[in-house]
Amino acid sequence: MEVYAGVDVGGTNIVCGIVSSAGEVLHTIKRPTESSQGPEAVLERIAVMIEDTLQIIMDQTSSIVEIKAAGIGLPGLVDPEEGIARFSGNLGWRNLPAVNWLQNRLKLPVFIDNDVKTYVYGEAMYGAGQGTRHVLGVTVGTGIASAMVNDGKLFYGFRNMSGEIGHIVMDGLDDRCPCGLQGCLETYASASGMVRQAKKLILAGERSILRDWFEGDRLAELSAADLSRAYDQGDSLAIAVLEKAGKLLGRALSYAVSINSPEVIIIGGGGALAGERLLGPLKQELLQHILPDYREHLKVVPAQNNDEAGVTGSAMYAKEKYSSL
Amino acid sequence: MEVYAGVDVGGTNIVCGIVSSAGEVLHTIKRPTESSQGPEAVLERIAVMIEDTLQIIMDQTSSIVEIKAAGIGLPGLVDPEEGIARFSGNLGWRNLPAVNWLQNRLKLPVFIDNDVKTYVYGEAMYGAGQGTRHVLGVTVGTGIASAMVNDGKLFYGFRNMSGEIGHIVMDGLDDRCPCGLQGCLETYASASGMVRQAKKLILAGERSILRDWFEGDRLAELSAADLSRAYDQGDSLAIAVLEKAGKLLGRALSYAVSINSPEVIIIGGGGALAGERLLGPLKQELLQHILPDYREHLKVVPAQNNDEAGVTGSAMYAKEKYSSL
Repeated sequence: MEVYAGVDVGGTNIVCGIVSSAGEVLHTIKRPTESSQGPEAVLERIAVMIEDTLQIIMDQTSSIVEIKAAGIGLPGLVDPEEGIARFSGNLGWRNLPAVNWLQNRLKLPVFIDNDVKTYVYGEAMYGAGQGTRHVLGVTVGTGIASAMVNDGKLFYGFRNMSGEIGHIVMDGLDDRCPCGLQGCLETYASASGMVRQAKKLILAGERSILRDWFEGDRLAELSAADLSRAYDQGDSLAIAVLEKAGKLLGRALSYAVSINSPEVIIIGGGGALAGERLLGPLKQELLQHILPDYREHLKVVPAQNNDEAGVTGSAMYAKEKYSSL
Repeated sequence: MEVYAGVDVGGTNIVCGIVSSAGEVLHTIKRPTESSQGPEAVLERIAVMIEDTLQIIMDQTSSIVEIKAAGIGLPGLVDPEEGIARFSGNLGWRNLPAVNWLQNRLKLPVFIDNDVKTYVYGEAMYGAGQGTRHVLGVTVGTGIASAMVNDGKLFYGFRNMSGEIGHIVMDGLDDRCPCGLQGCLETYASASGMVRQAKKLILAGERSILRDWFEGDRLAELSAADLSRAYDQGDSLAIAVLEKAGKLLGRALSYAVSINSPEVIIIGGGGALAGERLLGPLKQELLQHILPDYREHLKVVPAQNNDEAGVTGSAMYAKEKYSSL
């Protein structure tokens, strides 16, 4: 059996999976990233995880399984052509020749790309975007990022720096963003942004059930999932925050639609777990701000394989790159 | 000698040129479009113009010149794959099989595309974008539209409907747009938008040298070029309109940069003739609203072959399509 390895490297965890040629995830394992141990330790961990996952599959199936290539999704700025992880604040990496290192270690063709790009590639080709030609994917998590897949090809832009939709400066927002700009979309509409806005309102004395759930110092524990819980109990603060975040996302997406004309927009990442609470106002605001021709055809859908899309995407990205070598 | 024909079809005029393989325009002619005579009359005029231009070149050079293929840039919604002009309000065309008709008539390979796409293709490959890999082009004319060329390939999106940057709804604008939306970028920042805004301010009683230049009914004659003239005399109304238009363009372009990461932005079309009067505030606003990484590398430049870029672009677009047949 011929398979591909897909690895999704996050600031907290690494998820590694073995994926069939058809995009079926056969097995995944998850281990802590522990980036504080330095880049080589993390690369070695990735290599060991690929070997271990392969071993598990071979034991399960009692057959020889051959990995054709490995794909790795990395946070931050990645140069897939040179195989270099240019910069990752999360991992503390700078100009790391990851492909070279891993190929020498694994004796396998290895391909790297930005994790949002591999995630959206997976969703576009093997998830919610299947059967469509022009996909825009957005991840709503700690930050907000986007990627496009057109006719099966990822869109890059200069220095692979496309997809920074989270740093569009939105009117009416004034929080400083760590990037240096003021009022970036992700300061409000990311999962962590929504939590921060809710906390701010609570500390300013606004009424909310969340005040009772998270008294005093416990407010630090408030998560995006709690906002959804409070929303479902009719909490006006949670409703206001989710609606405003949804509207901001919808407005920013209206810009992307007018510029790029995607056929389908896939919303993924942890923030997407809010479902229609976020997607409802998002879609309303989006459709109100685009040309009628777009409005008639555009689909907005949640990610299908939210958890595994990073693994599927990285593995199938490697398959595509390997096949075109 | 092997050459390509490039045709730029506008609502008022058709410009036809013969272009060398290297992108050099050998000769152009211009005739009125007269679309009121119906689509077949316009297609026949295009065919005759290609034949006439070729004849002129052959007479001039006293040699046999062979047109390998013809490229036609058409306004409105074009399906280049099917060779059909889907919709053009300007020309009154709907689902016209232009490629089929012209190929039968001319016995030549013919390729069509949207005129902004062929124009930006010409500028990206043979004009201000030469030597760069990721180009975003914007035409500021009666409306505002955009197109992208990445590694020599035009970006299309679903149904070839990318590039509607002029219909991004901007905060703070409230004019109705004929498209049905309210506050579209082009209601203010297009050449005709700027003229309309200036007239509105004059009629509202604002002081301006333009009041003296265009008394009473003559106000209808006010053009974008007059705004530049008044600007140069220090007229506060003209300065305010051009600055606001530039800022709006800059802000909308900041969205495009964050989403697509172009390496260079080319500003073309009639409105670009305002030069730094428009580009100054545009660049300032744009650079203030993008990530530092973009700011360091992004170039914003005026179109190089503003007049002939449509012809060069259509011809070289045909060359590219013909070569990849």
